[in-house]
Amino acid sequence: MEPTTPAAGTVAGPARRRRNPVTPGTGPQRWDGVDVHDYKTAGSAPFRGVTRQVLFERDELACQVRYFEVEPGGHSTLERHEHVHAVVVLNGHGSCLVGRDVVEIGPQDLVEVPPMTWHQFRAAADAPLGFLCVVNTDRDRPQLPTAADLAELRTDPMVAAFVRTSD
Amino acid sequence: MEPTTPAAGTVAGPARRRRNPVTPGTGPQRWDGVDVHDYKTAGSAPFRGVTRQVLFERDELACQVRYFEVEPGGHSTLERHEHVHAVVVLNGHGSCLVGRDVVEIGPQDLVEVPPMTWHQFRAAADAPLGFLCVVNTDRDRPQLPTAADLAELRTDPMVAAFVRTSD
Repeated sequence: MEPTTPAAGTVAGPARRRRNPVTPGTGPQRWDGVDVHDYKTAGSAPFRGVTRQVLFERDELACQVRYFEVEPGGHSTLERHEHVHAVVVLNGHGSCLVGRDVVEIGPQDLVEVPPMTWHQFRAAADAPLGFLCVVNTDRDRPQLPTAADLAELRTDPMVAAFVRTSD
Repeated sequence: MEPTTPAAGTVAGPARRRRNPVTPGTGPQRWDGVDVHDYKTAGSAPFRGVTRQVLFERDELACQVRYFEVEPGGHSTLERHEHVHAVVVLNGHGSCLVGRDVVEIGPQDLVEVPPMTWHQFRAAADAPLGFLCVVNTDRDRPQLPTAADLAELRTDPMVAAFVRTSD
């Protein structure tokens, strides 16, 4: 048999990946053909109840589009890095720290994390927090706060009350 | 007076931009501090009832995140280009052509447009279609179909029935 090659203009993969119906309490929102991963390697950094899905990633695109979902009461890692985050909330509710600002966030709110800015996302106690996060494909590794960084951050009572640094 | 400089870790712009409450029939969804633009210069390419908002755009980010909203019955331009589109539907319903595939799309469905692939988005007759579109900041200009391209596309009855090439 001849090897089959797609005709000109034919889409190799599926053009559309459907959002799957969501059943509350059964884990994060899913899409057709998208795998759910651990947020980070357990023990590598403090976080609680976070999953990661890569929605778009290909050579021709200079960024990756990821979806993170934080369980009710959970939180991402408090960290900073040179690369920026462009965040669009999709589902649920929660709050985030960006620099010294602690703000509430809900569906379709936008959050921008500038370079070298401490940030952390928390889901509400009674709802998950699901958000898109666009990042450069080529990016630096996150930095965790030192004891001195934490002491400095905690001089602000609002920040001190917000941050979570261990499981 | 001394010029004020932000303290280390301070966010220069607002960390969060809220989605504004949506009143049906009063134009596209809006966000705090985000301007609504024409989709393209009128007359430059065929389209109908489409607005464009740039949600994230900064030097450190290799991509732009835009939001397009197509009015009920409207459509984007039928075009292709070397750069890719990573699309996440946010609001409403509609359909799209990607290559030879015509598919229905709704909230949080994902659409990937590969390089040099003909594509067009249409809102439903009775609902708008609002979607995020992530693209490389550095990208080529879209190409419009020639008469020969259109004739070739229209050899597929499904594609012929779908495409809109003038106002």
